Amino acid sequence: MSENIITAYAAPSAGAALEEIKYNAGPISDEHVEITVESCGICHSDISMINNDWGQSAYPLVPGHEVIGIISQLGTKTKGLSIGQRVGLGWFSESCMHCPTCMDGDHNLCSNIEQTIVGRHGGFADKVRAHWSWAIPLPDALDKVKSGPLFCGGITVFNPIVQLGIQPTDRVAVIGIGGLGHMALSFLKHWGCEVTAFTTSADKAKEAQRLGAHKTLNSHDAEDLQQAASSFDFILSTVNVKLDWEMYLATLKPKGKLHLVGAVLEPLEIGAFSLIMGQKSVSGTPLGSPETTRKMLDFCARHDISPVTESFPMSKVNEALNHLKSGKARYRIVLEADF
Amino acid sequence: MSENIITAYAAPSAGAALEEIKYNAGPISDEHVEITVESCGICHSDISMINNDWGQSAYPLVPGHEVIGIISQLGTKTKGLSIGQRVGLGWFSESCMHCPTCMDGDHNLCSNIEQTIVGRHGGFADKVRAHWSWAIPLPDALDKVKSGPLFCGGITVFNPIVQLGIQPTDRVAVIGIGGLGHMALSFLKHWGCEVTAFTTSADKAKEAQRLGAHKTLNSHDAEDLQQAASSFDFILSTVNVKLDWEMYLATLKPKGKLHLVGAVLEPLEIGAFSLIMGQKSVSGTPLGSPETTRKMLDFCARHDISPVTESFPMSKVNEALNHLKSGKARYRIVLEADF
Repeated sequence: MSENIITAYAAPSAGAALEEIKYNAGPISDEHVEITVESCGICHSDISMINNDWGQSAYPLVPGHEVIGIISQLGTKTKGLSIGQRVGLGWFSESCMHCPTCMDGDHNLCSNIEQTIVGRHGGFADKVRAHWSWAIPLPDALDKVKSGPLFCGGITVFNPIVQLGIQPTDRVAVIGIGGLGHMALSFLKHWGCEVTAFTTSADKAKEAQRLGAHKTLNSHDAEDLQQAASSFDFILSTVNVKLDWEMYLATLKPKGKLHLVGAVLEPLEIGAFSLIMGQKSVSGTPLGSPETTRKMLDFCARHDISPVTESFPMSKVNEALNHLKSGKARYRIVLEADF
Repeated sequence: MSENIITAYAAPSAGAALEEIKYNAGPISDEHVEITVESCGICHSDISMINNDWGQSAYPLVPGHEVIGIISQLGTKTKGLSIGQRVGLGWFSESCMHCPTCMDGDHNLCSNIEQTIVGRHGGFADKVRAHWSWAIPLPDALDKVKSGPLFCGGITVFNPIVQLGIQPTDRVAVIGIGGLGHMALSFLKHWGCEVTAFTTSADKAKEAQRLGAHKTLNSHDAEDLQQAASSFDFILSTVNVKLDWEMYLATLKPKGKLHLVGAVLEPLEIGAFSLIMGQKSVSGTPLGSPETTRKMLDFCARHDISPVTESFPMSKVNEALNHLKSGKARYRIVLEADF
């Protein structure tokens, strides 16, 4: 049936420009929903998948995993959703729903988790499908264009705040003021924390303060860092480059936590003594569970938090991708569907 | 006054055999107690300090930081202790008592903490002194000879169980079945956990089971480890050698914790992805606070837990040290005072 034909932008091969395609998604499965896409954010991982950087891409590849849209089809066994409802869909699109991890509410850690653009087609399209559990209703107060990036970049930095039990009395710091980091600053400021941004330039420092940082520290300035010794309860690293982790560990208070959401490829080199003496930890988290995502959306609605975005019509997807690659995006790019 | 003259065994220089010395400890300070030593355990760190391995030794050096004894002098401003009371004294002997960390109950993380055998004289002696806060009353049910090692080796492995909130429903594993590891097995078994020992030989496996392990895994056997993928909530490493940490991380469940109390000198090499994907952490702790030590002693009394020890008269301290160096001690050596 024509209702199952989806129009999308796909990379025909590794690294290629996207082209319009149509594919038949078939009859909707019992537990799946179909979302008519209104907007879809672009994330660096879309580019990584287009380029097959992680060796897990299949072509044609339809990127897009920061979707906002309206439910247009519901399988017969979906729960808690209705046709016409506005939802978001992020990096994950299905979990097994019955393993101990899912049953504990940690659907994001399910070992059989499905990723929206790995082995299936994503949201640079007029429609996209997902298991009902990962289609999360968008509160009315949140914008249908600006909110897409919350479902990947946003939940990536919100999740550790919840998982690690960060308290409003904590002093926290963020490494990397970009697509992820700018949202982390805003979340942590509204969480009630004292927020410091590690930056590398005076320009970035001003920007970080506009975005929510109470203080900034120049991570290239040895004196700045010396003075920050034993300052932080929590440091969130959003970058994917190798840093002098020992230097950052030294800025943690006793019991402080250095937490990574940026997938650095080089192994972390950490001294055991640096962990043992001050009871410190190094940890990581992926994106959050459906319920943590719901909490984030509620928190954003209450505190009027939204990502800083630039938007392009979806038909200009290749221009938008080039803008992201140029490093000039401030801070997330969103495609608005114009089929 | 003669009551302030202390007889002790001291290393006159780095690596030398211990010799009997006498020193004048002077009038007791307001907040200090003097303990008449009944027994004192020997720890590997005594040997490290004798050898100046950490560059912080001063000579003559009196080792000994696993003391059990009777309070024989009290300063005028000590709290909660009385003459004649049996107490234990471990690696730490004084904290500032007023910094935020001390005021939070984490006296063990105080940045001005004093260590019993660093810059002062320890417990291979007829008497030893300490701030009242670190002289912890020994429950009547605990043995005055066997209990010394609880105050260093014991609290080192008990502390993370408390700090990391290990639950009786957790599946846990211990790396290194020696002076620290044998106590960890016993604590965790009585904590109610399912306990696995990582071992390297069939002999060690049997010993580990006698000591409390429900299961053993040969860490040199790739197949054993493959089968243990995603098994553990908590792995406690008590060794001070470099291991394949990624291999151990793979045996953790989602949200699992790899925790170190053994001070490996080589940097840990950890992949960020290994932490991020399963929400895992790598952490460390030093010895516990006075209150955590008290909880440990109470737990030991209730569950009839004691270290496995061999004892020597203190006058044979050099023989005892050689026995420890030979690697044949099962598992902790205690010196009994025979002045």
